[in-house]
This record gives sequence, C-alpha cells and structure tokens, in this order.
Amino acid sequence: MLTPLFYPESIAVLGVSRTPGKVGHDIVANLLAGGYAGRIIPVNPAAPEVLGLPCLAEIRKTKEKIDLCIIALPSSMVLESVRDCLEARAGAIAVISSGFKETGAEGAELQRRIAELCQSHKVPLLGPNCLGLINTEHRMNASFASRMPSPGCISVISQSGAICTALLDLAAARHTGIAKMVSMGNKADLNEGDLLIALAADPQTKVIIAYLEDIACGDEFVKAATEASSKKPVIILKAGTTVAGQKAASSHTGVLAGEEIAYGAAFMRSGVIRADNFEALADYGALFAMQPLPKGKRVLIITNAGGPGTMAADAVEKAGMIVATLDRNTASALRQKLPSAASIGNPIDVLGDAEPDRYVAALEAAQEDEAVDAVVIILTPQAMTKPAETARAIARSNKGEKPVVVAFMGGADVMPGRDELVAAGLPDYPSPERAVAALQALVEYAAWRKRPPRMVARFPVNRRRVERIITRRLRTNRLQIGEVKAKSILAAYGFQIPQGYLATNGST
Amino acid sequence: MLTPLFYPESIAVLGVSRTPGKVGHDIVANLLAGGYAGRIIPVNPAAPEVLGLPCLAEIRKTKEKIDLCIIALPSSMVLESVRDCLEARAGAIAVISSGFKETGAEGAELQRRIAELCQSHKVPLLGPNCLGLINTEHRMNASFASRMPSPGCISVISQSGAICTALLDLAAARHTGIAKMVSMGNKADLNEGDLLIALAADPQTKVIIAYLEDIACGDEFVKAATEASSKKPVIILKAGTTVAGQKAASSHTGVLAGEEIAYGAAFMRSGVIRADNFEALADYGALFAMQPLPKGKRVLIITNAGGPGTMAADAVEKAGMIVATLDRNTASALRQKLPSAASIGNPIDVLGDAEPDRYVAALEAAQEDEAVDAVVIILTPQAMTKPAETARAIARSNKGEKPVVVAFMGGADVMPGRDELVAAGLPDYPSPERAVAALQALVEYAAWRKRPPRMVARFPVNRRRVERIITRRLRTNRLQIGEVKAKSILAAYGFQIPQGYLATNGST
Repeated sequence: MLTPLFYPESIAVLGVSRTPGKVGHDIVANLLAGGYAGRIIPVNPAAPEVLGLPCLAEIRKTKEKIDLCIIALPSSMVLESVRDCLEARAGAIAVISSGFKETGAEGAELQRRIAELCQSHKVPLLGPNCLGLINTEHRMNASFASRMPSPGCISVISQSGAICTALLDLAAARHTGIAKMVSMGNKADLNEGDLLIALAADPQTKVIIAYLEDIACGDEFVKAATEASSKKPVIILKAGTTVAGQKAASSHTGVLAGEEIAYGAAFMRSGVIRADNFEALADYGALFAMQPLPKGKRVLIITNAGGPGTMAADAVEKAGMIVATLDRNTASALRQKLPSAASIGNPIDVLGDAEPDRYVAALEAAQEDEAVDAVVIILTPQAMTKPAETARAIARSNKGEKPVVVAFMGGADVMPGRDELVAAGLPDYPSPERAVAALQALVEYAAWRKRPPRMVARFPVNRRRVERIITRRLRTNRLQIGEVKAKSILAAYGFQIPQGYLATNGST
Repeated sequence: MLTPLFYPESIAVLGVSRTPGKVGHDIVANLLAGGYAGRIIPVNPAAPEVLGLPCLAEIRKTKEKIDLCIIALPSSMVLESVRDCLEARAGAIAVISSGFKETGAEGAELQRRIAELCQSHKVPLLGPNCLGLINTEHRMNASFASRMPSPGCISVISQSGAICTALLDLAAARHTGIAKMVSMGNKADLNEGDLLIALAADPQTKVIIAYLEDIACGDEFVKAATEASSKKPVIILKAGTTVAGQKAASSHTGVLAGEEIAYGAAFMRSGVIRADNFEALADYGALFAMQPLPKGKRVLIITNAGGPGTMAADAVEKAGMIVATLDRNTASALRQKLPSAASIGNPIDVLGDAEPDRYVAALEAAQEDEAVDAVVIILTPQAMTKPAETARAIARSNKGEKPVVVAFMGGADVMPGRDELVAAGLPDYPSPERAVAALQALVEYAAWRKRPPRMVARFPVNRRRVERIITRRLRTNRLQIGEVKAKSILAAYGFQIPQGYLATNGST
C-alpha cells in the first residue's frame, strides 16, 4: 500500500525554488545528490527550470501518473495543491510545509480537511510539518536533510524532524547504515501504526527505532507494535512523559501527549523496547542490528582491569541479569592459557598487560561454555594495550552465536580499536554501563519473543449495568464517577466489592 | 604533609629496567617526557645508566635526602626496599608493584608490614599495586600511564589504575585539563580520606573526582569528605554496589566492598556528588570545573527543535528541577527578536532555521530573567544550522553568572561546534538527558552548600545497659541479637517500645 511513498518511480516537488536553502530547492537537490534514479518533476509556474530539470507549471497539466507528490508550499496553498495532486492521480502525498495543527485551531482545521481529502481518495498522506523521507535501497532522499545515509538495516520513524537529522549525523559518525527514515510530522494521516506495519513487512528493515511524543490511536498501535515486534525489534523513545515534557510537546506538534503509565503498559505488552534517552535509541539500535538474540540472561564479563569489571558486574546485576558462573571445565582449560595472576571468575580479568591473545582465549571459552548466554568485553588503554589489534582479534574469533557487546573506554588511544569493531559488526560503547544497558534491552526482547502464548480468560460482565451508570452521568453532564458508582462498575465486572451504602445524613 | 609526594624535588625509581614496556623503565621515561624539572635517580645495581641517567646501585648509598621513592620491584623485594628508602630518609614512598593483598593472605600480611614500617617512620605510602601519580603543575608524571594530561583544575583519585588511564585518554579527547591524579591501589596507608584532605587544600584543584570500590574508614571518610565538599565539589563513582560487583571488586583489590545503603547515607551527608556510571564521572567533572553554581533549580531550555526540547523538559522534571516560567517582560522583549513562529515558552524554540543571533537573543533573555537559575541549550543539525558560529556566539554572550550546559546533538556536522564550546569553557553533552543529569548534580551540590547549619540534639542514653547486653552476648559467642534484647537496646536509646515479655512455653 505504501509502495508509491517508499518506492516511487516518479516524484513531483511542488513549491520548488531556485534559491539554495529553500526547502523546495533542497529536496530536489537532495534527490539528485542521493542518486535517485526515477523521474524528478519540479513544479513551479514561474521558473522554466530548477537545478537543470525542466519545471512543470501546474501539476494538473501532467499526463503521466505521478507516484509521489511532495508539497513544500506555504500552508495557505496546500489544500488547493493537494487537490491538484489528487487530480493528477498521485499515489502518495508528503506535505513538508508547516503552519497546521502546531499553530492552533485554524491550522488544525486546515490539516483535518487535507487529511480527509486524501483519505477519501485512498491516497496516503505523510505530514504535514515534516522533514520528508529517505529510502537508501531506492537511493531516494526525499527530505530536506542533506545527509544521505549509507544503506543499512535500521529504519527510523520520528515525530520530530530534528531527531531525524541528529540521528543521521550520529549514524554517519558511527558508520551506521539506515534502511528507511520517515519523518511523520503532525501525523494527519499516516501514523506510527501504519509505518510499523509497513516496516515490519519491509525485508530491508531488520530493526525499527522510533521517536514518539504521542500515539495517535492506542488500540491500533498495540496491534501494529505487537505484529511488528513479533518479526523484528521495535525500539521507541517516548518523549513527553512528564507534565513539563507534555507541555513542551504540545506547543510543537499540536498534541497533548498521553499518559505515561498507559504507554508503559502498552509498550510492555506489545514487546516494544523502550529507550529512555537519545543515546539509548542509537545504542540499542546498533546492538539489535549487529548481534543475535541471546538464549538467556547469563552474562560473562571479560576485562583487562578490575575497576571497569566491577562496574560491569554492578550494571549486570542492577539490570536484572545474571553474572554467569563459568563451567569448571571451561575455567580450568582457560587457566592454561592465561597467566597465573589472571582472575578466572566472572569478570575474567586478563590483566592490564593483556595482548589480543588473552582476549581471544577468554572469548573462545565464553563461546564454548553452555553457562554463558552473552559476553561483555571491556578494554582500558594501558601501557601494553593494543586496541586495534585486540578489536580485530575479537572480531575474528567471534562466532556470532552469542551476542557480544564491547566497551573500549577512553578517547584517542582506543579510537582505532572502536573503528575496527564497528567495521566488524561489533557494537562498541564508551562505558561498561552503556554496553550492559543495551544488552539488557536485547535480553528482555529475547524473553518477550519466547513468551508463552497469551491466555484469554472470559468472564461474565454486566455490560448493560455499566453503560447505564455512565450514560446517566453523561446525560447530567457529570464527568466524574464517585466511589459508590465506581464500585458498582467494578462489581459489574465481577470484582468482589465489600457491601456498602451511601449514608445521606449524619443521624445514626 | 604530602608535599614530598606531590611536589618532590628529587625522585628515586627502584627497579628501573633498560627495557621499554617494563614499569620501572616507563616511569623514568614518563618523568622525562612530562618535563619533570627535579632530579631523577634511577636505582639499579646492574645497570650503569637508564635513559641517559646514571644509575645508583643502592638507594642506601645516597648522601642526599630523596623526597619521593618509587618502587617497581617484584613484591618479594619490596619490604627490604622500603626499609632502604626509609634509611635514605625518603619523604614519601609509592609502591607500584602488585602481589600484595589482592593475591591472598600472604600478600596481605606483607602489605601490612610495609604499611606499619612506613607509619612508624611517619612516611606516607602510596599503593601498593597502583599506577603512580601525576601532578601537572609540577610537570611530574610519576606513573606508568604514558599520557601526560594538560594542566587543568580537575583532580582524580582512583582505586583502579585502569580508570585513571581511561580518564586520561578521555580527558585528552575532550581537551579537559587535570591538576593531580592519584592511583591509590591497595590503600595500605594513604586512602581516600587523606587524599581528599590534601586535595581540598590544594589551590590547583577546583573539582575532585574519585573512583572508589570501598572506603577504608567510614568516620574518617565522612569527616574528610564533608570538609572537602565544603570547599569544592567531590564527585564519586562508587563501584561494587551490588553483590556481583562486590565479588568482582574483592578479587581485584582484595577488599570486600561495604554496604550500599551506608555509602548512600554517608555521601549525602557529606555533600558528595554521586556519579552512577563512568561517563557521569567525566560529565559532572567538566560541568563543575567550567560553570558557576546556580542560585536555584529553575531551568530554561533553549532549542532549535521541539523534540529534543521535550526530551530536555522531561529530564528536568524527572530530575526534580523546575522548568522555569519566563518573566512576562522577558518574554515580550524576546518576542521582538524572534520570528513569530518561534515558541517563547519553556522550552524556547528558536526554530529549525535558527542562526546564531536567535540563540544569542534567547540566552541574553535567560541571563536577564530573575526567574531563571540555569540554562540548557540544545542544537540539532538542520539545513541552516551553523554549529561552530552558534557555539562562538553562545560563548561570547554568556556572562558566566548562571550555569549553562549545552547539547549539540549528532556527529560530524556538529563536531566543529563542540570543539568551540570546549575551548570556550562551555560543557557540551551528546544528548539533552546527559546535559540535564550533569546540571542536576550541580543544582544538588549548590543546595547542599547552602544547607542550614546542622542541629545536634542531645538525649539521655543508658549506655551501660547497652554495653551490658552486648558484652554478655559476645562472652557467650553469640553474634546476633534477638528481638527482645534488640528492643531493650532501642529503649535504652530512648525509643518508646511497646511492653512485651518473652513467653518461654506454649501454655496459656
């Protein structure tokens, strides 16, 4: 259904300008720079050409069917322009322009009418007030973010365009690839539910990460998220979780963010992995993209220093995982390969003068040991440490059956090692705690995937009684339900409630 | 008292080798490379010279007084060697060698004897099993960490040498300066209490950061930490806070780490700022070193995008701070300077196309407004964003009266901005959440500094009764106290306890 949006063969851009820096201009420039192979049709009644491409004066004038229309006109012109696009048989429409729900009641009404119009034509609408979208497989940067990411298996859904650009910039720095990135803006039509379903079905997408401030429709979301999570990990940063945050959110995308507790329950039930901050979103995404799911939660720590090993052990226990106990045979075999001062417990301390071979010996032992489900490898830069060589050796001896996370701690000295790790598909973190936090997300998702089938228990409910109570309240314009009636509702659902009566006067 | 340790005019290194990579060799090399201006005396009976310096055959043979003796000999030779150093009137001794308490009972006994010997001569002993120490002011790198940091105002105390090297590497990457760095190792003599007192009195040190796995003496620590915190911030990462972490810690520095709750209470009482992970240690250190303390906890957020602003508002509220309400006059004055679409609330959204001038206008408003105690500035890389110029403009218009933290989110695009911020003394964080977490630490420390004077209430205690109960138990080798006697003790301290008697048989 979203093929015209993600894989258009032709793209019209309405509101192109010849001035670099203007959104309409930049989208065409980004399409060209990204290597988009389809037809690009700039629409501008005043300019003969833009960036070497001939302009169409009016979208309605085109004879051919256009897959995707991108609108970057002032908000007052958008409704008319959407009508034109629909007339030109657009397959999908993306409205970049702002000036809708986020500006107040008038903008909200305009937005509603545009959405209604698209829905009545069964044409999906992205936005308004968004950055656009990117599909690296299709070499399409249909956004005004100038960074075309390298292809990868992580897809991004975001209610904030700036989070998209920050993630793109971060992905470039960390050499992380992106499959698809969608900026949803005000979500007049397409929302997180639709996009989760689309990305769940997308073979390019292995991991979905999302930034949300509200959820358009709770039931649809839970259904879509459960379906998506059953196929691939869905990691969500939900902002607007506090009163202050909700207030901030409502002044920018025009929504009042929903209730924190309900979100928590919905996420847990639908297998969504929750990221608590911006870095976690990227941290978790990288791990899920690179490493297999663990069989359990027994973690082995390998380190060249006691302090960071202790920090990792603390973090593993705090996260509710288990500091694994090595099998006796593994331990004694490893004893032969490490110096006598090395500590062969958990953490395994390969000592400060460890060269790559000791890390390899410890990792091999961890991989063979049935009592180990996942491995955390820590390196601190000491006198004899060879970060790059160690990273390569770890990558070579990693069989890829158990998840491995790595924390090379420090700065310039360990950087060559970090680059090697990323190149080899090993997720690297700047601290033991962040490595362990990502691993926790992986462990919890693996457990959710293996959850027992859901039991549905049916019980009798006196639905009519509940409806009667609520209807009567609404009829008398009372929007709250007191203790007595609330208990009646609970009783109608089968809860056992102590008997009680309302005393309407004080005499005994 | 610690002058010979921190400012020695002469340093002898016992156990020097001519082989690079050997600890004794590297310490001499690091002293030379760091630019140490005092006399360096390598001690080696077999080699005539090391690194161009003539060797002394035996430390006892020297006629001059040696301020600092550094011992890097095998553990079996250390006791004898310490005796020689004391005979040579050493002012302080640092034992780098491992093979003491961390290896078991025999090593612990050896360590005890060395410490006793030094204490009987009133000569401070650092280590054993440590990295050494650094004093940038004295251009002294008396450690085997090859990175000599640039001078700065942050001093480091660590129970893990690897945390020192990781912090040094990180400091270099972030261009953070260091005043003094001390690796305490097994803390046979000098411990965190002694070093807190020394660094509290050190004019070069503005901020103290510490990594600890246990605390040698609770009472002394609370006294030292309270004294130090009253003068300058003390930030501590306490590892070994879980059973797994304690187990890990005990296998490496030979201590069983103490109880988490007691540490929490001790830290809170003594004004210690607690870092929960490795990055927080560096994050907080940078903020305390660079910015003033706030008057209160009302935070203003300035952002060029709604999403990160919402994340910051969430973080501020979760951290127990207040999302400030701008004064009406400030808001209307700012309204003149920002485009009409800008949101002048909190967050102040200067919009995605903001150039430096809008950030400057918002920061100036924040600085003038009495209702704002601290400022969080967020930048995301969007089409028109100029990170470096914006960073410079922020730095220029920052008056330095209120703390300012900055989060330039992304990677390569914002990096030039980050470098400008660090150069200008503005602490920069990769996410709003980390910026706000650091600010929270600053706010809490400022509140501790302004705490009301402690009230001491005296109340009568029947001390003899308590002593009698405990003595009787100990005499009969019972190490636990049951409910009845425990209540008697509480009653002796003046608690009102419900009357009760022990029923010794079941009849009524």
